[in-house]
Amino acid sequence: MPKLELDAISQTNATGYPPPFDAAVEGRWYRRLAPAAGLTLMGATHVTLAPGAYSSQRHWHRGQDELVVMIAGHAVLIDDSGETPVGPGDVLVFPAGEANGHHLHNRSDAPCVFVAVSAGSREADSGEYSDIDMVFGPEGYARKDGTPYPTQRLP
Amino acid sequence: MPKLELDAISQTNATGYPPPFDAAVEGRWYRRLAPAAGLTLMGATHVTLAPGAYSSQRHWHRGQDELVVMIAGHAVLIDDSGETPVGPGDVLVFPAGEANGHHLHNRSDAPCVFVAVSAGSREADSGEYSDIDMVFGPEGYARKDGTPYPTQRLP
Repeated sequence: MPKLELDAISQTNATGYPPPFDAAVEGRWYRRLAPAAGLTLMGATHVTLAPGAYSSQRHWHRGQDELVVMIAGHAVLIDDSGETPVGPGDVLVFPAGEANGHHLHNRSDAPCVFVAVSAGSREADSGEYSDIDMVFGPEGYARKDGTPYPTQRLP
Repeated sequence: MPKLELDAISQTNATGYPPPFDAAVEGRWYRRLAPAAGLTLMGATHVTLAPGAYSSQRHWHRGQDELVVMIAGHAVLIDDSGETPVGPGDVLVFPAGEANGHHLHNRSDAPCVFVAVSAGSREADSGEYSDIDMVFGPEGYARKDGTPYPTQRLP
């Protein structure tokens, strides 16, 4: 069925981030749409950020384009250029290889909802986190000196 | 700038459909986001359907996943399973190779707005139109017997 029954797709706030980096995304509740929907050429996630939650640690991807469509509620986009309020109907784009770490922070008192879509090879992807001592790649999470973290990236 | 200034991106209702198939999308006004935003691994289009307009002729893709996020207004999704009302916050998915022709029809008296994202090889893509004597592929538009139409697909 092309119109997704979002409520029928399981929601989780799981993260592979090692502590203490996991705390920022505890209020990030998401549904993986691509496997539920049979999409194989893109990733797609439906995300609800509780008040106070971040969408991720601030990061960028070498190998994947990302696009976010804001559906409901309000958040602040934080990237290298500063802070930008975003709300329903806004479209945010993060081209592969642009080393501009970004994330969303829900500073409102209501949930905010968006869909994030990615394309490119997830397996070959890598990237960096702007504000913390962490990078990611095919092997998982590591410090910037290459020392692995003990947690696994989630699929 | 990750948050797109949508009003600054040129909008068009151009189509490569040969007549008389072009009439259905005369009220489809769209902005190509990917080239404007530097995305190279996905296609992305911001679409406003005037009352009465269709998103496309009913079609499906062999080589591209498609995902639509409804932002504002209401439309009817038409596919092989029938008609489904869609509105803000709905997410529609069309996996590559699923031969289920689909399009949206704005039957309301207000515009409807959505973002459509695609991934996969556009150059190698092909597909079919469900309700008319037309197919598409790397060479462009043709009748189902292979006779080319004189118009070109738009990039």
